[in-house]
Amino acid sequence: MENLVFILPLFGVAALIFVFWKSAWVSRQEVGTEKMAKISRNIAIGAMAFLNAEYKILAIFVVALGILLGVKGSFEAESSALVALSFVVGALCSGLAGYIGMRVAVKANVRTTNAARTSLGKALEVAFAGGSVMGLGVVGLGVLGLSSLFILYNYYIGAGWDTMKVLNVLAGFSLGASSIALFARVGGGIYTKAADVGADLVGKVEAGIPEDHPLNPATIADNVGDNVGDVAGMGADLFESFVGSIVGTMVLGAAFVALPEFAGTFNGLGAILLPLVLAAFGILVSIIGTFFVKVKEGGSPQAALNVGEFGSSFLMIVVMYFIIMWIMPESWVLRGETYTAMGVFYATLAGLAAGLGIGKVTEYYTATGTPPVLNIAKQSLTGAATNIIAGLSVGMMSTAIPILLIASAILVSYWVAGLYGIAIAAVGMLANTGIQLAVDAYGPISDNAGGIAEMAELPKEVRQRTDKLDAVGNTTAAIGKGFAIGSAALTALALFAAFTQQANITSINISKPTVMAGLFLGGMLPFIFSAMAMRAVGQAAMSMIQEVRRQFTTIPALKAALEIMKKYDSDISKATAEELRIFHEADDKAEFDKCVAISTTASIRKMILPGLVAVITPAVIGFVGGPEMLGGLLAGVTVTGVLMAIFQANAGGAWDNAKKMFEEGLEIDGQKYYKGSDPHKAAVVGDTVGDPFKDTSGPSLNILLKLMSVIALVIAPSIAIRSVDPTGLKMEEKKIEILEERAPADAHNIISGVSEKPENKMK
Amino acid sequence: MENLVFILPLFGVAALIFVFWKSAWVSRQEVGTEKMAKISRNIAIGAMAFLNAEYKILAIFVVALGILLGVKGSFEAESSALVALSFVVGALCSGLAGYIGMRVAVKANVRTTNAARTSLGKALEVAFAGGSVMGLGVVGLGVLGLSSLFILYNYYIGAGWDTMKVLNVLAGFSLGASSIALFARVGGGIYTKAADVGADLVGKVEAGIPEDHPLNPATIADNVGDNVGDVAGMGADLFESFVGSIVGTMVLGAAFVALPEFAGTFNGLGAILLPLVLAAFGILVSIIGTFFVKVKEGGSPQAALNVGEFGSSFLMIVVMYFIIMWIMPESWVLRGETYTAMGVFYATLAGLAAGLGIGKVTEYYTATGTPPVLNIAKQSLTGAATNIIAGLSVGMMSTAIPILLIASAILVSYWVAGLYGIAIAAVGMLANTGIQLAVDAYGPISDNAGGIAEMAELPKEVRQRTDKLDAVGNTTAAIGKGFAIGSAALTALALFAAFTQQANITSINISKPTVMAGLFLGGMLPFIFSAMAMRAVGQAAMSMIQEVRRQFTTIPALKAALEIMKKYDSDISKATAEELRIFHEADDKAEFDKCVAISTTASIRKMILPGLVAVITPAVIGFVGGPEMLGGLLAGVTVTGVLMAIFQANAGGAWDNAKKMFEEGLEIDGQKYYKGSDPHKAAVVGDTVGDPFKDTSGPSLNILLKLMSVIALVIAPSIAIRSVDPTGLKMEEKKIEILEERAPADAHNIISGVSEKPENKMK
Repeated sequence: MENLVFILPLFGVAALIFVFWKSAWVSRQEVGTEKMAKISRNIAIGAMAFLNAEYKILAIFVVALGILLGVKGSFEAESSALVALSFVVGALCSGLAGYIGMRVAVKANVRTTNAARTSLGKALEVAFAGGSVMGLGVVGLGVLGLSSLFILYNYYIGAGWDTMKVLNVLAGFSLGASSIALFARVGGGIYTKAADVGADLVGKVEAGIPEDHPLNPATIADNVGDNVGDVAGMGADLFESFVGSIVGTMVLGAAFVALPEFAGTFNGLGAILLPLVLAAFGILVSIIGTFFVKVKEGGSPQAALNVGEFGSSFLMIVVMYFIIMWIMPESWVLRGETYTAMGVFYATLAGLAAGLGIGKVTEYYTATGTPPVLNIAKQSLTGAATNIIAGLSVGMMSTAIPILLIASAILVSYWVAGLYGIAIAAVGMLANTGIQLAVDAYGPISDNAGGIAEMAELPKEVRQRTDKLDAVGNTTAAIGKGFAIGSAALTALALFAAFTQQANITSINISKPTVMAGLFLGGMLPFIFSAMAMRAVGQAAMSMIQEVRRQFTTIPALKAALEIMKKYDSDISKATAEELRIFHEADDKAEFDKCVAISTTASIRKMILPGLVAVITPAVIGFVGGPEMLGGLLAGVTVTGVLMAIFQANAGGAWDNAKKMFEEGLEIDGQKYYKGSDPHKAAVVGDTVGDPFKDTSGPSLNILLKLMSVIALVIAPSIAIRSVDPTGLKMEEKKIEILEERAPADAHNIISGVSEKPENKMK
Repeated sequence: MENLVFILPLFGVAALIFVFWKSAWVSRQEVGTEKMAKISRNIAIGAMAFLNAEYKILAIFVVALGILLGVKGSFEAESSALVALSFVVGALCSGLAGYIGMRVAVKANVRTTNAARTSLGKALEVAFAGGSVMGLGVVGLGVLGLSSLFILYNYYIGAGWDTMKVLNVLAGFSLGASSIALFARVGGGIYTKAADVGADLVGKVEAGIPEDHPLNPATIADNVGDNVGDVAGMGADLFESFVGSIVGTMVLGAAFVALPEFAGTFNGLGAILLPLVLAAFGILVSIIGTFFVKVKEGGSPQAALNVGEFGSSFLMIVVMYFIIMWIMPESWVLRGETYTAMGVFYATLAGLAAGLGIGKVTEYYTATGTPPVLNIAKQSLTGAATNIIAGLSVGMMSTAIPILLIASAILVSYWVAGLYGIAIAAVGMLANTGIQLAVDAYGPISDNAGGIAEMAELPKEVRQRTDKLDAVGNTTAAIGKGFAIGSAALTALALFAAFTQQANITSINISKPTVMAGLFLGGMLPFIFSAMAMRAVGQAAMSMIQEVRRQFTTIPALKAALEIMKKYDSDISKATAEELRIFHEADDKAEFDKCVAISTTASIRKMILPGLVAVITPAVIGFVGGPEMLGGLLAGVTVTGVLMAIFQANAGGAWDNAKKMFEEGLEIDGQKYYKGSDPHKAAVVGDTVGDPFKDTSGPSLNILLKLMSVIALVIAPSIAIRSVDPTGLKMEEKKIEILEERAPADAHNIISGVSEKPENKMK
């Protein structure tokens, strides 16, 4: 059984083989017409321009923080370099996953469009293949990276070390993942919405140019944005959750090492390895799941995705049951309480149920035709203001059930399996990430495929097919967003629990003023983080509009084409032959690259300040205010972060679909309203407000709360002793007491490992 | 010195004498033209209709809750009836203060208008006299009620009781104040904005009828709303803070009773009586302050108010210094720490500084011409959506400094004076409530005076004078709102600290899952509370529009007058004599009372659900989840409640003034925009969204967090023992330990008082 540890990386390798195979298959598909190829090339160039710019900044950030971690001496001397190593490897894995996912998504966009020219089934196949490359890339690199490093540290470099120390070093991996996620999610979110809002508003400001029209130079940036934000951003977000939940659980598993019941499970490492093994087998389940996603012409893509997603969820439950029964002892005693393997299994179920539940609630609050969305649509009759009030109110109200689900998951999983239960619940929710993310990423790919069909002026049935795929994508996107928030919340709680263990604090007492002050400060951060993200979108969108306006007034061919557009009210089929000639002279004249550059620069520049706030605050509070105040800070940021994330995501989603309901034609009180009607215009205002809400500031908060928790976890050993007792005298005693509560038998063993080098701890 | 206690009620009586004198003076002023008298009568009828409807529901609520408190047996038998008595007296005092304040405000409205026909100074005098009746009424009834009950309980009914028990019974007063505040602030907030948004939208829906026009049947409801929401609502809010901060401090002061250093101060009651004495002398300072508010024609009303407000703040600081030095011992030892009277004084300064600081920050984020407001105005150039995004972002960003100020106040006041310091900081902030509230209430009175000038078609210079008063009122309103939020936060913290002491919990440990779950649940409540309040406004505004539309289509005279209005684009000076005759036939035809009834019914009905949520949640969590989970709930609701209150109040205020900047004429990038321009229309959307934000959902949260804390405080003794130790065996031991930490000398004394009747405690 022990040797299984060494096989774990192979599961990651298997995922990567799948990724390369699928990726090659996507590349082999045909691109379509020359025009499609050109559009696709422009999107690819734009996407890579963003990635290059982002990775350049990232490289500086990673090297700087790596050096700080390695040299600063915040850790024991021999740990320091390894924390830095884990950090860099984690960052590389996350960056690589994003890179692979983006590359294939960009390719899959146009190939989905082309496939839609022949059949719906083929189009779904291409789009989903693109998504599954992202999905399996993320889980593959996560498992490969984490398991390889664990083997390296536990059996080679750190052989003989205390397990706690090994895990502390390993936590750097999670920090690396979080750092990339910060840049990908926040930067990507700013990018995509600056382009989207900019392109949107151009229509309004320069009346008469539709958002997706090829004359609009912001169009390519908008398409790039969909890949950057919705594919790579979401991928990095889930990579962070996936890795964070595993690391958090592993750290908490260290409390079981010396329990006699665990002697027979990987030499005591059973509880530590359980999350890794679950994740590894989750890869196989996800791969199997992808083979079930198939649809015939006339069939329902929704059904196909459901089979893949829910079928594999069910399979995952079965697999989890057997793995948990196999690895964990039937029962054990900790702090005088008896726990069972069955309890751990129930905890994973609680996590999975909360995740699916939050997804379903998200769907209820945001899907076309549901009561809340219909209510927003109705309130649009009296103008934009009532539409906005209704949307804000729906968003706020939508926090209720998800919070009840999260609170229940916390209570249930703790009740059945203790602190470890809370962390393993997050793993249970995320074990299936491979296929979950494949389904998520499928959405923006088919959305973009539709955009390309429009730009390439393909026949209507192509757009109809991609629209059918896209409609399904909207539902999966809603569920995916709920899932991302739910997993972020549980992951943050897992990391929080791991932090309290690593920092040696048994109590974070809110009735202490430092903790209460920390709670207030933490609670505030999601508000200013959201404000910064929204302001960034607003400013970047403004630059975008100015650039588009400049092109429209200074590029003669564009100017002439626009005048013809306006003359015929955008319907150029009525134009004369001469006018058509002039019109098509503008075909290549829009300078897309300038708009791409604006979005790129803005997103990179504007994410630095929020990024620094997220990184520096927990470090400063931890070192100055001590671990308990830091605990208060984390609790504050987690609670309001989750609330604000749900509020913003659901308000944005609901506004979006309220607008869509008018575009499909909506009857209210006996009168039917269409696109272009006054209520529709009011609904467009709501949709535009919702854009940064649901795609920039909202999702950024997922990252914020995980990132801050993981920073706390990484610095926990360094702040543990100094603040509780500067003299170091009472600490040993206290530690024994804490650990005895946890696992009486091994308290002195663990302590002896820690207290060997008190001089380092004191730094 | 001891007899001073019996003099305290006289300070309250002095305030009430002032109130009656000022009130009579206001009544003696002339009303003006017949038309003004009629408008004023309509407003008075509407306001009283609301108060009657509200007080009817309130009476049922108070009686029901009073019986529940008195009979339920949650308290020791002899306490129960007295808790109920305190509760009813508290409710009566708050209700009476609101009634007095409203009555005089309604009278002062029209008399300010009339005074403005002759001079600015006179108008200010009338408006401020109206405000000072509200201000002194609140503090007078607060001090009179609290001090009388304390005397009754401590020296008569409960003579010989443990001080803790006396204070627990007294806390019912604060619960009564909170209950009324809930109805007045939430109900009043719904009322005022349903009328305002309804009246606003009528203009848009039925194009061409200005909001304030006498033909608009919603106008009177709108004016009533200003009195109901901004005067009575704000008064009830500050009454709650004023009373809550005093009660919280008194409870914490009980820890000092047996300290030898306190033997010479009111027989040990020094720390308990300090907040009452400060509040009592605060009345005198406020009365003195009102005499300094005077302005000559051509002078600045702002300067006059500043002299009154800041002058009396300064005087208050001096008075507080001497009172604290006189009552508190020079230094004392508690839990091994040495505290000083000087430290207590510093804590009051910290509270006062935080309050003024938050007020100033509010002004920065919401006043005309400041960078954040200018930014919102600029973003209106690209439409309503960017205006909304900018406003939301400003509101979120504006939470940063107030939270830093609150966190600093917590840390500083604890550092200089322990837990007692946090509570006395709230008292320091609120000692000056009398004049603060006078200045706050002056704002809506002069605002309404302007409205009456418009409706009564008085000459332009009258409106110009009232506008001058109103402009100042806007600034003071902004500061007042910030002050209300800051005081709510500190009061909630004071009550929270008192709760932990009464519930006998030394730790509220966030790393426990029940506490974390409580934190999540508490954090969620402000979101759903806000959502419910906003939805109520939206629905009520919709009914209002339908009613106005009905009147416009079914009342022939109104219909005819409207057609003339439209013909001349609202400028009826161009109408023919015959048309004017027809137009004026409509003068009395608008059925104001129907609109008043809609607002009244809606506001009363819609506040019931959020009210029940606020009352029931802490009780259920406390009895089922125990005091620690309840502590988590309170911390959650306090943190997100304060954040959401600041966010909503400031976003709303900023939108409001961004709109006003266009109405004054605003130059952006070389072009000047006025009322009616596209950017102005976009800014109007923001203003309409901001209305329920800043006047309904935002301020309601002030009440929510104080109400929940005070419920926790009142039920604390009942939930204290049962949850910690159902057997009751370990409790005594634990209590001694806790109290020994607090005050070693008296721990056993206090315990002996408590443990005499363990059978009651167990209920």
